[in-house]
Amino acid sequence: MLKLFYSAGACAMASHFALEEAGAPYELQAIDLRKGEQRTPEYLAINPAGATPALQTAEGVITQNAAILAYLADLYPDAGLAPAAPFARARFNAFTGFLASGLHPALGRLLFSRPPLEGESRTAAADLVLAKLDVVEQHLLEGPFVFGASHTAADGYLSVFTRWARQAGLLDGARYPRLNAHLTREQAREPVRRALAAEGLEPV
Amino acid sequence: MLKLFYSAGACAMASHFALEEAGAPYELQAIDLRKGEQRTPEYLAINPAGATPALQTAEGVITQNAAILAYLADLYPDAGLAPAAPFARARFNAFTGFLASGLHPALGRLLFSRPPLEGESRTAAADLVLAKLDVVEQHLLEGPFVFGASHTAADGYLSVFTRWARQAGLLDGARYPRLNAHLTREQAREPVRRALAAEGLEPV
Repeated sequence: MLKLFYSAGACAMASHFALEEAGAPYELQAIDLRKGEQRTPEYLAINPAGATPALQTAEGVITQNAAILAYLADLYPDAGLAPAAPFARARFNAFTGFLASGLHPALGRLLFSRPPLEGESRTAAADLVLAKLDVVEQHLLEGPFVFGASHTAADGYLSVFTRWARQAGLLDGARYPRLNAHLTREQAREPVRRALAAEGLEPV
Repeated sequence: MLKLFYSAGACAMASHFALEEAGAPYELQAIDLRKGEQRTPEYLAINPAGATPALQTAEGVITQNAAILAYLADLYPDAGLAPAAPFARARFNAFTGFLASGLHPALGRLLFSRPPLEGESRTAAADLVLAKLDVVEQHLLEGPFVFGASHTAADGYLSVFTRWARQAGLLDGARYPRLNAHLTREQAREPVRRALAAEGLEPV
């Protein structure tokens, strides 16, 4: 059976949402990043990079949300997690890649730097986050879902970061009306509510 | 015809290498990041995120190296750019995702922060880069290529960052013997030499 290694509220939630959206049979194993559990020898044998998510499969371990989402889309082709045709799949991968390599590092630096950023560094980091959210609000989110009429796993992945942004007071209603409406819709989905509850979380 | 928007020496080189490895017909268009050409209205119409690479295709534009490499692998299935089977493709995507979302941001912060990092911030940023290179050296690079006996587009993508690391004096021969040998082999490949020459660069 698939086993997802995750840390509650962290980015592995994207893979957790996708497993629920697909109706896949899977187990969860919590790795508490705040306690440093990603650096135990046992977990480093699963993912030597010491990060979550990791998805254990019958063939081996897959890391990185973008890779896991595309893999689950292939494993459950009827679940609508991602389009299958090469160009449409490439657009899906480009969007999840933008989240993984652009929005996530920017938000992570602003919210989780230790010691916390201050002064000009903090302002510059916040401006970078807002600029990346602007790109999604104004260009990438076709509406109502990321890729128009069809929900995909890209929507769940986006909602991980808009959750963080809303919790940090960054998701201003006037500047980000479409992202706010999208997040609220996502959190009303049954698969999302099940995943949040399993992680001990609630809609924000 | 495919058209690649790139900036000489920057990360779009990964997509440039893959186009050459595939023997694909394509055009190049330079976007000089140092001159801010990624923020012109003309280029923002290609990629609203204002980043390179972008690959213009008959169906539309694809951004993000990881997405472009997987797309070119689908478009040129005989070129060996990436495996096609779902689990093997997922491992390919996980590796390119690690480069895009882990190694690249870490190296970018160390090498390209403006103003340059100093003191403890610089030491911490350098330690993070070295730790990520350690993961590749010790765990991810199967040898001689990233995925063992077969060269894939993941090898070219890795070499973009080991080039930057070698140029910055970070690729110590004793600590990174496998990465050094890999980079030297990559730069001896004819497709790589053609791409470097087209960008006005030489092996390092």
